[in-house]
Amino acid sequence: MAGPIGLRQRLAGRRALVNGYCMMPGAFSGEVYARQGFDVVTLDLQHGLIEYADAVRMLQALTACDVVPMVRVPWLDPAIIMKVLDAGALGVTCPMIGTAEQADRLVRYVRYPPRGERSLGPIRAGLIHGPGYAAAAAESVSAMAMIETAEGVENVEAIAAVPGLTGIYIGPGDLSLSLGRPARLDAFDPVVDRAVERILAACRARGLIAGIFAPTPARADELVRRGFTFVTLNTDVKALETQARQWVDEYRTLESR
Amino acid sequence: MAGPIGLRQRLAGRRALVNGYCMMPGAFSGEVYARQGFDVVTLDLQHGLIEYADAVRMLQALTACDVVPMVRVPWLDPAIIMKVLDAGALGVTCPMIGTAEQADRLVRYVRYPPRGERSLGPIRAGLIHGPGYAAAAAESVSAMAMIETAEGVENVEAIAAVPGLTGIYIGPGDLSLSLGRPARLDAFDPVVDRAVERILAACRARGLIAGIFAPTPARADELVRRGFTFVTLNTDVKALETQARQWVDEYRTLESR
Amino acid sequence: MAGPIGLRQRLAGRRALVNGYCMMPGAFSGEVYARQGFDVVTLDLQHGLIEYADAVRMLQALTACDVVPMVRVPWLDPAIIMKVLDAGALGVTCPMIGTAEQADRLVRYVRYPPRGERSLGPIRAGLIHGPGYAAAAAESVSAMAMIETAEGVENVEAIAAVPGLTGIYIGPGDLSLSLGRPARLDAFDPVVDRAVERILAACRARGLIAGIFAPTPARADELVRRGFTFVTLNTDVKALETQARQWVDEYRTLESR
Amino acid sequence: MAGPIGLRQRLAGRRALVNGYCMMPGAFSGEVYARQGFDVVTLDLQHGLIEYADAVRMLQALTACDVVPMVRVPWLDPAIIMKVLDAGALGVTCPMIGTAEQADRLVRYVRYPPRGERSLGPIRAGLIHGPGYAAAAAESVSAMAMIETAEGVENVEAIAAVPGLTGIYIGPGDLSLSLGRPARLDAFDPVVDRAVERILAACRARGLIAGIFAPTPARADELVRRGFTFVTLNTDVKALETQARQWVDEYRTLESR
Amino acid sequence: MAGPIGLRQRLAGRRALVNGYCMMPGAFSGEVYARQGFDVVTLDLQHGLIEYADAVRMLQALTACDVVPMVRVPWLDPAIIMKVLDAGALGVTCPMIGTAEQADRLVRYVRYPPRGERSLGPIRAGLIHGPGYAAAAAESVSAMAMIETAEGVENVEAIAAVPGLTGIYIGPGDLSLSLGRPARLDAFDPVVDRAVERILAACRARGLIAGIFAPTPARADELVRRGFTFVTLNTDVKALETQARQWVDEYRTLESR
Amino acid sequence: MAGPIGLRQRLAGRRALVNGYCMMPGAFSGEVYARQGFDVVTLDLQHGLIEYADAVRMLQALTACDVVPMVRVPWLDPAIIMKVLDAGALGVTCPMIGTAEQADRLVRYVRYPPRGERSLGPIRAGLIHGPGYAAAAAESVSAMAMIETAEGVENVEAIAAVPGLTGIYIGPGDLSLSLGRPARLDAFDPVVDRAVERILAACRARGLIAGIFAPTPARADELVRRGFTFVTLNTDVKALETQARQWVDEYRTLESR
Repeated sequence: MAGPIGLRQRLAGRRALVNGYCMMPGAFSGEVYARQGFDVVTLDLQHGLIEYADAVRMLQALTACDVVPMVRVPWLDPAIIMKVLDAGALGVTCPMIGTAEQADRLVRYVRYPPRGERSLGPIRAGLIHGPGYAAAAAESVSAMAMIETAEGVENVEAIAAVPGLTGIYIGPGDLSLSLGRPARLDAFDPVVDRAVERILAACRARGLIAGIFAPTPARADELVRRGFTFVTLNTDVKALETQARQWVDEYRTLESR
Repeated sequence: MAGPIGLRQRLAGRRALVNGYCMMPGAFSGEVYARQGFDVVTLDLQHGLIEYADAVRMLQALTACDVVPMVRVPWLDPAIIMKVLDAGALGVTCPMIGTAEQADRLVRYVRYPPRGERSLGPIRAGLIHGPGYAAAAAESVSAMAMIETAEGVENVEAIAAVPGLTGIYIGPGDLSLSLGRPARLDAFDPVVDRAVERILAACRARGLIAGIFAPTPARADELVRRGFTFVTLNTDVKALETQARQWVDEYRTLESR
Repeated sequence: MAGPIGLRQRLAGRRALVNGYCMMPGAFSGEVYARQGFDVVTLDLQHGLIEYADAVRMLQALTACDVVPMVRVPWLDPAIIMKVLDAGALGVTCPMIGTAEQADRLVRYVRYPPRGERSLGPIRAGLIHGPGYAAAAAESVSAMAMIETAEGVENVEAIAAVPGLTGIYIGPGDLSLSLGRPARLDAFDPVVDRAVERILAACRARGLIAGIFAPTPARADELVRRGFTFVTLNTDVKALETQARQWVDEYRTLESR
Repeated sequence: MAGPIGLRQRLAGRRALVNGYCMMPGAFSGEVYARQGFDVVTLDLQHGLIEYADAVRMLQALTACDVVPMVRVPWLDPAIIMKVLDAGALGVTCPMIGTAEQADRLVRYVRYPPRGERSLGPIRAGLIHGPGYAAAAAESVSAMAMIETAEGVENVEAIAAVPGLTGIYIGPGDLSLSLGRPARLDAFDPVVDRAVERILAACRARGLIAGIFAPTPARADELVRRGFTFVTLNTDVKALETQARQWVDEYRTLESR
Repeated sequence: MAGPIGLRQRLAGRRALVNGYCMMPGAFSGEVYARQGFDVVTLDLQHGLIEYADAVRMLQALTACDVVPMVRVPWLDPAIIMKVLDAGALGVTCPMIGTAEQADRLVRYVRYPPRGERSLGPIRAGLIHGPGYAAAAAESVSAMAMIETAEGVENVEAIAAVPGLTGIYIGPGDLSLSLGRPARLDAFDPVVDRAVERILAACRARGLIAGIFAPTPARADELVRRGFTFVTLNTDVKALETQARQWVDEYRTLESR
Repeated sequence: MAGPIGLRQRLAGRRALVNGYCMMPGAFSGEVYARQGFDVVTLDLQHGLIEYADAVRMLQALTACDVVPMVRVPWLDPAIIMKVLDAGALGVTCPMIGTAEQADRLVRYVRYPPRGERSLGPIRAGLIHGPGYAAAAAESVSAMAMIETAEGVENVEAIAAVPGLTGIYIGPGDLSLSLGRPARLDAFDPVVDRAVERILAACRARGLIAGIFAPTPARADELVRRGFTFVTLNTDVKALETQARQWVDEYRTLESR
């Protein structure tokens, strides 16, 4: 009955999920990071320096942490999508979804038959999420499509209508560039803003989780108040360098008084 | 002529060296951390989750960073001391030095004959620090003795007198416990404070680098003004968890308004 | 003259090859497993937690074991197929082959010109299988197509007719699901059974190796008597957990008497 | 208040703890093995092919498993003992303890001041076992001394009297050889049997956990009924090879009918 | 302003770039090799035993070496191309480019919008190449297309005309086989020779870098005098085995006198 | 009956064993190197960048190569000595043996009771060398003591007399420095030469293998003619850098004509 706690189960009763991105390929850094209060931790196999074997080790460490473990895959490729799910990730975020056909392929790689074509063999997922894993997967395992191109915006209503999709995630940097605007994360250019609004509307219409990246807590709060239900509060690398740099700079300033 | 830039070369013209501890066994996290303004980065093989093979990978990444690469070894053991030096570390910090005899062993493991008994074969050190490495090692490679027990304090003048020692580093947590006081890092109990003073005096008398851990920039500044010339401004783990936690907490507060 | 011992060479004079699946990414577990009497060990990069670098290490350990080293790749992707062959695998098993065109692509990725388009550069294969490796590859390196969908069954005669294919391997779990039947491994539903028979017939007609998964020795024997010439006798994970669980359970029962 | 569940906490209300040895250096094999019903899993860094970095990854995976994570260290060496404890092991088993002085050193490496000299810095232990870890360590972290030589038997009463020791573990193979008897595990030679009895008596007298290796469930039950409270039910390697070999042999027998 | 030193910047004022191939997956072997005088070191993820995680470690070591770090990817796959660039490679060489459409996809995976569709997030590239990395990428990051099939030769003028392509690299072994000639590297069959000439002409016409493999220094010199501006002077594996073998053979000859 | 082929078995009927040192921590580089005609390959855990886990992977690859696998340990430490033997090394070379007592400890760590105190549990050695491994170990497993200090020379007759020692290996660089002479490898200073002669005489008197490092084949031949029966023909790093450098230099010379 219970089944693993995926994005939808975790979101129940909450306004929004707070996600953190792991870009560093270490199970210990992942573990440290995942214990700081996030709802979700996403291992970034796209821009992060993480590959499958790192992801396995990190998923093993995350099993003991109170977060939903997600993976951002590098591309719409069935091999890596199925492998990270078999390793225990409770969902994938897939970059550069531009059409409903691509979104449908994403869902098919993530879902077991009859909806999809994921091959059966959840070697670690079955071990840690229990014998009911395969039966519960349709509820617990998420497929998040990233919209980050003009083409994706054009097709967002069709994408959102793909059965079995869990949510849409906006990559505001790439989206801005694709729309021919500068890649700002703290505030959106009006053109970008309209695209964001359209995506949000499509998510609302279909009951999808709407996710986005936020560089700061204030920006995250703004975006959630606007309707997002999943917000990435920056990355492990950014946290590490921000605090280390701040301590060193503060000391240098004190020293030079 | 030049030779590698070790602690003494880096200290020339500076008031104090700012050190950061790597506790996480990742070459990428090490690289990110080492590019935040530190003078020295110490790979902590004692309390960090780092072992020799990690240290090698991290030293490789640090070679391109503008820091002096040091290693804290887990114990006074010639095998690991010689191995990290051969791999390119420009010095070791050794915990739990309680006697002049132990300090002398440390120096002998770090120094080539005739002063010491380090075996010749600087496989990577020679490659990256250049053909003059072995000749310059007496100047460029450091031996830092940690004093963190009552016994070490008792013997600090004799320890400081050991020829070839580069400096003394205080572990204030262990030292406090060993002196029967609580392990405070932000301010010292009077008993601990007197021990610290005595160690500082011994360093000054022998021209040794005097190092210590500081939890905050303000505390680091205080300690440098007191006479320390090497100050550890916390660790990569602490930086990562402090900033990540702060962002999440800030968001949660904003959300719950 | 000899050339490496691939599936066909090993099968000569035997009724069937006994294969074991490695799902665990360890060269030592692989080595232990491969020394228990198998004819073939297949590193499972699809459902196993193994990736390319693990496979390399495992292939290195298997070189000293008396088994034919095979790899199940995650998907019909030339990159991974050519990489594992260059690393010394003597064949690949490819999941989800549904059409003759896909089977032909598989063969082309596995075979050198003129039959195929495998790029020349058998970096480790040449080292360990000897200078005649490339010349012998057409005989010694196998291409096994997995049929595990309704589409694959429909096209099985055309698939079997693809020149250069070595054999067909049935994934009975996925096949059952694809045919809308429950995923039973110990006995086949009549619909599945007919599909299996059709595949066997196609293999016989073309002189192909016919492979399948068997959960138990008794089932393996049944399947071989039915005509299969390659039978997977479960996995390393299943062996480990079955025996460990049995010992613990047996003890608990004895203790509670 | 609670504190981590170490050997003593787990033993409460049970007749004996069932331990499994991990000899294979894989976090996934460790995870599979640790989910088969054991009370304790010991990572064997002595005879197993596991080193510190493997142990860290395995401890990370074990954190989500319902077992007490222990480590058998290769030797009485403070470096490795303190490192595995800082990484989260809830105790160490140390081979070849022959004298009370050695047992005392073991306890001093495992215990914080004032009893011992373990250095403070439980980098991962603090993270996963919580802020009360250091305070609870005296209760939750175990020091198990292996007696496996004639000298150890001679000194067993003095060893058992060392304050802070948690238990004694018998290595029956080495003990037999040291006593000049063949290394049998299934039944003891009378000379060995008397030594075993003497060790058991010393444990009982001091309230120590008494541990031993057992090759089979029946032998484990016998030994527990004799008074042992900790019994190792063989290893992951033995489980893997026993079951794999049995399946292959069974098949070969069926095939050759 | 400066920007990283890519192929074009390094070539300025030189007749040709000398490249070495790393086939061995070790950061230390890579570091040793890269310090022997090469202009460029290419990590071979196609035929080498190197995968992404190895490439990251090797790129970290190469950062401190005076070479342009390139990666040969296994196939025209956006995932691996974007990942190695984000990790700091200053270009990719892509095998088996047969058409202008494929060359255009290669350029699109390598270039940021508006020319291409590389996703923004140069996690390590930004760290080590500096904040101006993304802006300078069009100049500093190279896209090299391998022509090694008859089809590629047929289309070479169209391939060379693809905007944003940096150069063409000839794989003479595969090219010879594809043209139905033996795979000779030391001298070309006339048919191959004409193809090579045509490729060279296409490069000259478009101002592209023209690269090729050479087994020996003499052959490299010949090829550069013929017009190539990038020449691979064999591989790390070949260097290692040639010298080791020569020393052993020389000794055996001396011994047997 | 047979037992594994150790140093003594390999030496039978040969004048001397040719050894190569692996300094690079890669199983593939080790495999390439070990297939170039050596009798023995020694994994150098002292000056090489190799640690235990690397050694395990390398020993796995060496199992399929026709060489005796040895390990040079970093120091006279029972933990690492027993671990590499359990992993399948057929002997250890131990640096810095200065006294008969140290040589005796070396032998005790290498030999099973009654001669020594090696703990029983040859986890991988038993797997690959067969069930007779432990019985054959006294013959097949070697203990080589390095003499490389003035103290070692003074005590060489006593060292050579230690029962169970297999041979003595001279480190001419460290030995020269310890004797206060420059570290030349191609020819010995007269003081060093006399020491070498004395060591050779002690080996002859006790029937021990006499080993030494040689930078070139000519030097190796000279040393074997002088009486050495084990000669190290340089290292993998030296081979790699010598050949790579030579090719680049040769090309640069040709280019600049």
